[in-house]
Amino acid sequence: MNMTSLSLLTAVLFFLSLPALADKQDSAVTHGMTNEQVSEAQWWDIPYPDRFDSSLLTHEQEFITIAGKNFVTSSGAKYIFRGVSSADPDKLTYDNHWNKRLFEEIRRWGANTVRVPIHPIAWRNRGQEWFFDRIDEAVIWANSLDMYLIIDWHSIGNLESGMFQHPQYITTRVETANFWKSIAHRYKDVPTTAVYELFNEPTDDFIGAGKGSLGKLTWEQWRETLESLIDIVQVYDPTVISLVGGLNWAYNLEPVAEKPVRRERVAYASHAYPQKAQPEQNTKEAFFELWQSQWGFVAEKYPVMVTELGWVKEDGYGSHIPVINNDGSYGPNIVEFMKERGISWTAWCFDPDWAPTLISDWEFTPTEQGRFFRNVMQSKSETQK
Amino acid sequence: MNMTSLSLLTAVLFFLSLPALADKQDSAVTHGMTNEQVSEAQWWDIPYPDRFDSSLLTHEQEFITIAGKNFVTSSGAKYIFRGVSSADPDKLTYDNHWNKRLFEEIRRWGANTVRVPIHPIAWRNRGQEWFFDRIDEAVIWANSLDMYLIIDWHSIGNLESGMFQHPQYITTRVETANFWKSIAHRYKDVPTTAVYELFNEPTDDFIGAGKGSLGKLTWEQWRETLESLIDIVQVYDPTVISLVGGLNWAYNLEPVAEKPVRRERVAYASHAYPQKAQPEQNTKEAFFELWQSQWGFVAEKYPVMVTELGWVKEDGYGSHIPVINNDGSYGPNIVEFMKERGISWTAWCFDPDWAPTLISDWEFTPTEQGRFFRNVMQSKSETQK
Amino acid sequence: MNMTSLSLLTAVLFFLSLPALADKQDSAVTHGMTNEQVSEAQWWDIPYPDRFDSSLLTHEQEFITIAGKNFVTSSGAKYIFRGVSSADPDKLTYDNHWNKRLFEEIRRWGANTVRVPIHPIAWRNRGQEWFFDRIDEAVIWANSLDMYLIIDWHSIGNLESGMFQHPQYITTRVETANFWKSIAHRYKDVPTTAVYELFNEPTDDFIGAGKGSLGKLTWEQWRETLESLIDIVQVYDPTVISLVGGLNWAYNLEPVAEKPVRRERVAYASHAYPQKAQPEQNTKEAFFELWQSQWGFVAEKYPVMVTELGWVKEDGYGSHIPVINNDGSYGPNIVEFMKERGISWTAWCFDPDWAPTLISDWEFTPTEQGRFFRNVMQSKSETQK
Repeated sequence: MNMTSLSLLTAVLFFLSLPALADKQDSAVTHGMTNEQVSEAQWWDIPYPDRFDSSLLTHEQEFITIAGKNFVTSSGAKYIFRGVSSADPDKLTYDNHWNKRLFEEIRRWGANTVRVPIHPIAWRNRGQEWFFDRIDEAVIWANSLDMYLIIDWHSIGNLESGMFQHPQYITTRVETANFWKSIAHRYKDVPTTAVYELFNEPTDDFIGAGKGSLGKLTWEQWRETLESLIDIVQVYDPTVISLVGGLNWAYNLEPVAEKPVRRERVAYASHAYPQKAQPEQNTKEAFFELWQSQWGFVAEKYPVMVTELGWVKEDGYGSHIPVINNDGSYGPNIVEFMKERGISWTAWCFDPDWAPTLISDWEFTPTEQGRFFRNVMQSKSETQK
Repeated sequence: MNMTSLSLLTAVLFFLSLPALADKQDSAVTHGMTNEQVSEAQWWDIPYPDRFDSSLLTHEQEFITIAGKNFVTSSGAKYIFRGVSSADPDKLTYDNHWNKRLFEEIRRWGANTVRVPIHPIAWRNRGQEWFFDRIDEAVIWANSLDMYLIIDWHSIGNLESGMFQHPQYITTRVETANFWKSIAHRYKDVPTTAVYELFNEPTDDFIGAGKGSLGKLTWEQWRETLESLIDIVQVYDPTVISLVGGLNWAYNLEPVAEKPVRRERVAYASHAYPQKAQPEQNTKEAFFELWQSQWGFVAEKYPVMVTELGWVKEDGYGSHIPVINNDGSYGPNIVEFMKERGISWTAWCFDPDWAPTLISDWEFTPTEQGRFFRNVMQSKSETQK
Repeated sequence: MNMTSLSLLTAVLFFLSLPALADKQDSAVTHGMTNEQVSEAQWWDIPYPDRFDSSLLTHEQEFITIAGKNFVTSSGAKYIFRGVSSADPDKLTYDNHWNKRLFEEIRRWGANTVRVPIHPIAWRNRGQEWFFDRIDEAVIWANSLDMYLIIDWHSIGNLESGMFQHPQYITTRVETANFWKSIAHRYKDVPTTAVYELFNEPTDDFIGAGKGSLGKLTWEQWRETLESLIDIVQVYDPTVISLVGGLNWAYNLEPVAEKPVRRERVAYASHAYPQKAQPEQNTKEAFFELWQSQWGFVAEKYPVMVTELGWVKEDGYGSHIPVINNDGSYGPNIVEFMKERGISWTAWCFDPDWAPTLISDWEFTPTEQGRFFRNVMQSKSETQK
């Protein structure tokens, strides 16, 4: 294929694409782009990103938005997200289990939502185009099964200091902002990608080494960062829901009482693992009281999602602080707590390797918590659709 | 070649170079450097950068500086830069057209100036040494033809947020500052590299996606960044001209009225493509009025250069907003506007691929705008030399 | 080796490691880590960093801490560090001279301290694990010889602007903070790694190009950066000594009089090469006066270490400003000056390549300054142990 014919072809294609731009007052300055890129050396012809092709969606799915403290469908009904987190699409591809079968099984468990964690290290290793292909697949699969997606930028650490819990979580403000620019641009007006969880777990603590062991981080700083990310998202997609977490690995939301995020279409996340609350007595009432004061109170005013929860016995696979619960009380308690308050949730993790696990193998054999959450989701009173 | 003899040789060379340092009160701390680098692993012997060897210049060329609102030669005459942008030296090398023949043709067109855009992605891919070699060649060719160079750091986007229009434009404040440090150090006291365009096109808008789609950017922030870059340039080369552009892809200069850049030896750039001004009526007077209020007024007080201008018909090669002009009025109008105000300019682009193009092939066949700008430059009344 | 057996094994190992975590109130959130990493693609199983295994230390060594203006041993005796800098472990490995023989020779010279400079470029090239292995070796060798280590983050330049003197010194605030996090975590409670020199030589001057040629840098800014680094260090290792230098390639400490670093367990460094002080007359008294006012006065209140000093004759190997001294007065003068004030020191450099050199070959033949500093260190009155 020679360059001259390519040039002619592209010039024609370029002209044909002008009407799409012509309705913009002040549009693309793209002097550098003249051909299709035929060699990596031709940086001037790296393609501009495309939007997701919505014609690929087979199911007419309602948009979810926020009305007061509730998520609501476009027809006005209250909506509760209930589902699971998958592993990262990169990890699932490595394992040869990134496929529609996974989403079908999650749907069979009664879930209406899949939370897809995207780790910064994977995003860099694989690149944007690879991840767009994977997220496109997730959108098409979830849509066909009438499920929603939470896209989750799965970092743990301190974006202010540039210190993170583990190499897989290393990122920067700039990379995070550009990630959300890319996602919000591509999936604008797609009902399936309902929620963007902007940063999985902000923390100033390196695996328990203490406050400040990942540098300084205050809610006031973090709120500014969240607001600047929301501003980026909303330029591209004014109606999508931005989900924001507090400090302490996205557990604490106390500062929201006095200093909420000053943007519209914002929901709050808590990752409420069993050992995060430390009541003096191990009673349901004591847990409810702590949960209410630490994050549950937010549900009186704003939509809340517990986008990570789950447990494992001390001698179970992958047991570690703060996910240990031996007496089985955690699951029923927290589900009751969330149900009373209309709180949405996704359990961690629909993967046999990433603990606490919901399945113990790729036959989808449920673990202890897997059986519990499956029963909750399959119970008609718990799920709307 | 063995290390010992190299060490001896280098020790001698090092000592011989001491007189050059000795006139500095407090000079190099270079404990780490002891040999010539003979292996990439020897990071401690990576050479320090050299200055351009001015003895390679064959033509005695006047220095251009600023007096009031004018560019002036060292002998005091007013000077107007008129010329073209080339493509990036990396792109031209890829195409096998980076050579003196290109500069000779530009001179034959009547140009006294070549603007050389250096894209951050190319700077990183090729490295500083490779680009120094290319810019050295440009200096030698331009000097021998009595032309000047504008060195242009060719990024488009928001240096504050770290968000850019396309991968070719991605850079950082730190990379940009270090680029100018390297350039200003190497080409100090070289008359040919007359103008440094610090950042091609600052914008908070991703190809028309709207204000803030590349993060927040205000003139006040941008002015601080420009001033810190100018401070770097002027430590190394106190007399070179720094050229600065405003927001909206370097189109708007309104804020300069109240908030000019607070440094000496500064000129202002506007990239005034046909569709940037949107007058209600398509008349010369209406365009003049908008141009005057949006950027032309600056020429009453400071030197101004329109370092990008050009047009193409809607059905021409590489047509895209904002460079479309169908009735041919744009060229004569803007040249008249600039001439009345003593504004310098360089047309985009002396390359058959990068639109709007001035040539349609490597035989240098002029395009519609190519014929026009060539005639203007070749007209004796328009060019001084 | 198959994954399933690995998973089982690791799950067991993981559980066994829980008691170590269990005493922490709110510990590791490590959902992603489930196996030993068996392929580079498995970023989710990159191991968490281990601590140094103190059982490898053969010698019971006292901890050094700060009491008022002195370094003191855990038994309360005043302590003066006297020794040398080695080259970077990466350079020494490249040369095949990173071994215990090097440390034994340094001990034979009478040194009680080895300063180990770690260059950012080497840290990135080799990686954390490789450097941990080298520093572990240094700890074991030094401990067995009853010597202490100064770990030195060997950058030269301006961490505020991101501009550095040479590629070997390029780093960032984030990389610097993460370096110290890694080091402080690994060597907590190890007596041998007594001192952390946080940043070798802060300067706003590119090899004598003038103030601001590496961007702006004030003591007030620099002090904030130092304090944030000390905060990181002290979360992990509350008792280690942080060593901080002033501007002008770590020469000047005048601002400490009014604006000391506002943290505990801080010592001050000066790099007092012969040509740094420029008295009008070349007399001992004139040098003493300048040294006293520029950095020596700090020793009246805080511990001070001259972590770089040394000289070479103008025609000697690697001669360069500011290390030239022809009349041999520098060595005796500065040693007397430091001795009177109880100032610690390490001479640069116990390497035949990096100037000013203490040895001229790998038989450890001393140079002029090598003979001098060896005599000083071997004199009983000068060294305590």
